[in-house]
Amino acid sequence: RYGYFGRGVSLIFCRVSGCLTDGRVFLSVSGEDMVCVHSRDTTGLRMLQNDGVEVVLLTSRDDPVTQSLSGKLKTMLSCEVVDVGDEPLKDVQEVMEQRKLSWKNVAYMGNDISDASCLNLAGLSGVPADASKEAANAGSFACRQAAGMGALREFAEHILQQTEKAKMQMKQDRIDRNNF
Amino acid sequence: RYGYFGRGVSLIFCRVSGCLTDGRVFLSVSGEDMVCVHSRDTTGLRMLQNDGVEVVLLTSRDDPVTQSLSGKLKTMLSCEVVDVGDEPLKDVQEVMEQRKLSWKNVAYMGNDISDASCLNLAGLSGVPADASKEAANAGSFACRQAAGMGALREFAEHILQQTEKAKMQMKQDRIDRNNF
Amino acid sequence: RYGYFGRGVSLIFCRVSGCLTDGRVFLSVSGEDMVCVHSRDTTGLRMLQNDGVEVVLLTSRDDPVTQSLSGKLKTMLSCEVVDVGDEPLKDVQEVMEQRKLSWKNVAYMGNDISDASCLNLAGLSGVPADASKEAANAGSFACRQAAGMGALREFAEHILQQTEKAKMQMKQDRIDRNNF
Amino acid sequence: RYGYFGRGVSLIFCRVSGCLTDGRVFLSVSGEDMVCVHSRDTTGLRMLQNDGVEVVLLTSRDDPVTQSLSGKLKTMLSCEVVDVGDEPLKDVQEVMEQRKLSWKNVAYMGNDISDASCLNLAGLSGVPADASKEAANAGSFACRQAAGMGALREFAEHILQQTEKAKMQMKQDRIDRNNF
Repeated sequence: RYGYFGRGVSLIFCRVSGCLTDGRVFLSVSGEDMVCVHSRDTTGLRMLQNDGVEVVLLTSRDDPVTQSLSGKLKTMLSCEVVDVGDEPLKDVQEVMEQRKLSWKNVAYMGNDISDASCLNLAGLSGVPADASKEAANAGSFACRQAAGMGALREFAEHILQQTEKAKMQMKQDRIDRNNF
Repeated sequence: RYGYFGRGVSLIFCRVSGCLTDGRVFLSVSGEDMVCVHSRDTTGLRMLQNDGVEVVLLTSRDDPVTQSLSGKLKTMLSCEVVDVGDEPLKDVQEVMEQRKLSWKNVAYMGNDISDASCLNLAGLSGVPADASKEAANAGSFACRQAAGMGALREFAEHILQQTEKAKMQMKQDRIDRNNF
Repeated sequence: RYGYFGRGVSLIFCRVSGCLTDGRVFLSVSGEDMVCVHSRDTTGLRMLQNDGVEVVLLTSRDDPVTQSLSGKLKTMLSCEVVDVGDEPLKDVQEVMEQRKLSWKNVAYMGNDISDASCLNLAGLSGVPADASKEAANAGSFACRQAAGMGALREFAEHILQQTEKAKMQMKQDRIDRNNF
Repeated sequence: RYGYFGRGVSLIFCRVSGCLTDGRVFLSVSGEDMVCVHSRDTTGLRMLQNDGVEVVLLTSRDDPVTQSLSGKLKTMLSCEVVDVGDEPLKDVQEVMEQRKLSWKNVAYMGNDISDASCLNLAGLSGVPADASKEAANAGSFACRQAAGMGALREFAEHILQQTEKAKMQMKQDRIDRNNF
């Protein structure tokens, strides 16, 4: 297990629609569309960033609203926002290659069928309580909270805990090696 | 049963207010009214469209907000939007006649008393968990989720499953016919 | 009991904030404030109007948002909207005097401490599931649903049922009187 | 206990995001962002003000939306709004010094890790049902309701009750002193 998880997670990919938001889009007649985001979850993202984990948000070509909010989310959360297609795997791997990261150092949060492959590959993968069954089967950490209501915060705390454990294990291994 | 369901559903009628949305309308002072739609449900509609099922949304003359969003929903979901009166039956049958469809090939999702007759007639009929009792009694498939929170997705998956079953039954019948 | 309820309810007073809406106000930076209303509840009001029951909505001076939506609600629901102060009793009785109505022919839906006196006096009084304890104690019909999620519809159906019962009782009494 | 609580609470600090609001921010493309506030909770604040308790709302530099709504909240609730940083303790103590108040006469409502120190110090401290575990452990009064759905009202009623008890205790003590 130690060999696999290594130095812990240094990047998290998180779906905007259905993970950062609750999946709902508020449609207005004039085009002043909205999504809603919970401060518990944005605090979770900041906790990860403060611990050195990079945050990359994923918006979808199928979801015109979150796509147009891309610039706003970027500024508000000081993170990169990547627009992905039907199947985010290719776009996600491109980002990983740029940063020379392998899956074991990547966390992924997704909520629907198109996230299943990334959820299966990621070192740590989280799904909100209201994820589709395909996503729920592929994710390793099932949040007790629904999307947009604290699920992301829960997963962020889980990541920080696991990273902490991994660091302590590495330290212990070093002590053991020096003593014997 | 096979004779009845036939080749499965080729068209779904779905109420906007209370089926695609949760039934709530956000009223603003200036007139910038809103409704909200869940990505889980719009993904469900896309799954049906990818399987060759046509989607027709029904807005109501009683609900001025969804009516003015009609053009937006049309573009966003690439589907037809039909404005119906107090009793959608007549408008729905007109659409069916244009496409030479009978009720056994039509799915209907409704949530209130005025939908009862269509729910009774449709080959497959679905009602969200928070439908009125008249609609709930008339519908054959009762979703576990409430409107605007995944009920439509649930019904969409049910339709795809039933269509799949109908196709397999037809194939089996053909095999049986050839073998005996 | 028959003597008390008489010919049934011919007018309903209903609080906007916390009965027709869920009590929440959406505040925006520019002043484009919003409240949200459920189609299940507006359908309930229409059912009452179709049965000859007049609907009077009550907004509060404490709630600037619903107050500015007053004109909109008037048009949307074809009903009168009365702006009341801290204690609605005086304003409500004025409306009743204009129409020469006594409390036994009036239904009242309220949700907070200031509604207690009207709830105690009305022939039929309803409170949503999330009413304050003072309102809940004063109301005679406790809805299973929360405000803005169908409580008003539930109370409307209760009123229609009671009116129906009162009419049948009157008919029966007339038959009994003629027979003996 | 009497010595500690003294004359009861004369000031309440309340976080806007996650205590007065439910913590959600509605993001729009054009910048017309929104938060939502429940009339049950604003009535709670008015009940405190009517009883002579000053209300001070706390917004956060991390939350640009509630910060820009500061002027609006000030007018709507006739109270002061103080913008605090990551750790509200310093700003809160400044306000207390201006008014020559000690912690035993201050109530504090908070919902997240950064509120823990103030929650520990305040004479009365409340946390909504959906507070983070750090806040929940530090607060003395755990509301049954979630933030933005009546938690603040619950805490307000608790404060009024405790103040009432403190006053009665003081009166009783005076009687006892005079009698013996």
